[in-house]
Amino acid sequence: MNLRIPGPTPCPEEVLAAGARQMMNHRGPEFAQILRRVTDGLNWVFGSSTDVLSFTTSGTGGLEAAIVNTLSPGDRVLSVSIGSFGDRFKSIAKAYGADVVSYATEWGEAADPAVIARMLDDDPSIKAVLVTHNETSTGVTNPLEAIAREVRARDRLILVDAVSSMSSIPCPVERWGLDVVVSGSQKGWMVPPGLAFVYMSERAWAANAEAKMPRFYFDAAKTRDSLAKLQNPWTPAMSVYYALDKAFELMRAEGLEGIFTRHEAVANYTRERVKAMGLKLVPVDERYASNTVTAVWWPEGVDGKAISRRAREEFGVVLGGGQGKLEGKIFRVGHLGWVHQADVAEALDVVEKLLAEARARV
Amino acid sequence: MNLRIPGPTPCPEEVLAAGARQMMNHRGPEFAQILRRVTDGLNWVFGSSTDVLSFTTSGTGGLEAAIVNTLSPGDRVLSVSIGSFGDRFKSIAKAYGADVVSYATEWGEAADPAVIARMLDDDPSIKAVLVTHNETSTGVTNPLEAIAREVRARDRLILVDAVSSMSSIPCPVERWGLDVVVSGSQKGWMVPPGLAFVYMSERAWAANAEAKMPRFYFDAAKTRDSLAKLQNPWTPAMSVYYALDKAFELMRAEGLEGIFTRHEAVANYTRERVKAMGLKLVPVDERYASNTVTAVWWPEGVDGKAISRRAREEFGVVLGGGQGKLEGKIFRVGHLGWVHQADVAEALDVVEKLLAEARARV
Repeated sequence: MNLRIPGPTPCPEEVLAAGARQMMNHRGPEFAQILRRVTDGLNWVFGSSTDVLSFTTSGTGGLEAAIVNTLSPGDRVLSVSIGSFGDRFKSIAKAYGADVVSYATEWGEAADPAVIARMLDDDPSIKAVLVTHNETSTGVTNPLEAIAREVRARDRLILVDAVSSMSSIPCPVERWGLDVVVSGSQKGWMVPPGLAFVYMSERAWAANAEAKMPRFYFDAAKTRDSLAKLQNPWTPAMSVYYALDKAFELMRAEGLEGIFTRHEAVANYTRERVKAMGLKLVPVDERYASNTVTAVWWPEGVDGKAISRRAREEFGVVLGGGQGKLEGKIFRVGHLGWVHQADVAEALDVVEKLLAEARARV
Repeated sequence: MNLRIPGPTPCPEEVLAAGARQMMNHRGPEFAQILRRVTDGLNWVFGSSTDVLSFTTSGTGGLEAAIVNTLSPGDRVLSVSIGSFGDRFKSIAKAYGADVVSYATEWGEAADPAVIARMLDDDPSIKAVLVTHNETSTGVTNPLEAIAREVRARDRLILVDAVSSMSSIPCPVERWGLDVVVSGSQKGWMVPPGLAFVYMSERAWAANAEAKMPRFYFDAAKTRDSLAKLQNPWTPAMSVYYALDKAFELMRAEGLEGIFTRHEAVANYTRERVKAMGLKLVPVDERYASNTVTAVWWPEGVDGKAISRRAREEFGVVLGGGQGKLEGKIFRVGHLGWVHQADVAEALDVVEKLLAEARARV
């Protein structure tokens, strides 16, 4: 099977094998060593000098942790949404009683840092900005460093969904001045789903001390205090930690720059190949096209869902579909984590063949 | 290693191997079949004619789901606590703004159904009762069927922490008239941590429609609606589902009655052996002693922590310690999930030997 959805991503065999290790005491000295090594690995990838927290949950749970640990009901926040996951981040804030102001682009577009700057200038009561680094639903990467610069200059908090970017494309949290940054294990980390990672800056911890949104399971302070004893407050997804411990060995051998370069090269190949097939990318400005997932419009009159089904059933190639209003209109090729050009080449060979057949029938 | 803590519990090798399966599309037809089989297995063990929900989280996250999906801030609830996990259930309710009335026993005692009945009669505004089926911190099992009868007769909701009982000792949710019942994958289910299971009765769903506590990740209605399409709303801990699918094969081969009988026999052996060593059980009334975990007082003047450390370092036997106010005063032997008498015998042989040495030195 050639799994080309943007997560869960395929895992190296040795990582899967490491995840099959027998259970141990999650509060014992052996697991403490694993948690230390894994946290060191997270700090390295995030570019953090303080310990990144991990929670047993999905990326969405990590986004909820970001919000409930830094905000209070009634707090005014600016939601920057460029797609389905940006909308989800906003929905979480609303569910917990935040007073949300919206900046939404057309899907396929990136957010404009100047617009965010203006909205913050116009409304000094905005306390925090919610922004997606890499929008998985449209294959667009926001200019996060530039956005963060505007937010930082105005002294607001910036909460970042880096679920599908962190570990695949650069996102140095301290260098860019980010406040809360979330990722998920099933994306670029080459391990199964089950863990979300949450970085919090000093500013975020100061906000945490005042934050009134209710929380228990996702309580960051409890998680930080347990981590100081090299434990989790609750029983963690041990197998994913085992797997991640092994994945970091592979990542350190390749190096962060090597990983970023590989993702960039595979993404460039994907985009060039798609365009050579006469297809149109969803990102309207290719400068913002994602290096972890490529979203492509199905041509007019072609039954994309039927092609996806045939790709899976006849060729074992699993493509991502469109979400929300893009359902049936686009396909997405995930190229993050344990991915090489040959994986994408095989998938696009199949798409090309099936598209030609579909067009011949028209 | 002989892991004798009350969770995470050791997993059969074939279950660990099943968990090492490669990732697939969590929204595709193959995973849908797994989710269907696993949910059928949950329904079978819970004794539910409607689909039990699963969440990627720990048991504590499952308890949070139980509360936020059925209650509103200000709702009056009766917390029945007989130990550390009962206290945690109560803390979650408080964190989300419930108005909590407390019934707490001395640790080691079970709850008295008559006391609960009287408290409900005295305060008709109590909407729900929070109760632990099996209190892991003290090795006491509450008379849940009798408690549920009193709650049912007074038409309140009963929310049950069955994290360390379900699948090991009988807890038929519909027959006993329970409303919300929570378990966790790392206990009697013979799989790694990462999933919590939540049953909701028709009454619980009616309460859900009115419940105002904020929720997003743990939203039961979203989870139910996704499950109807054989999906999870967020990316689930796939490996634990793979493992659980295999574990249900083993459980169905043994049969529920067989599993319950095995747990009862191992628990009886554990208690008789401990008493024969001259040690005292934490449960004050042995009728309520747990069939999944046995809690035992260290004798006066003995350094229990040192014995536990030697058991682990020299013999590979990992015992549970005391939690909260029982730290250093008791040890606990987990005997749930994939457990047989020989496992406990080996652990207690080591405790007996080390105790004799410690006493000889006194």
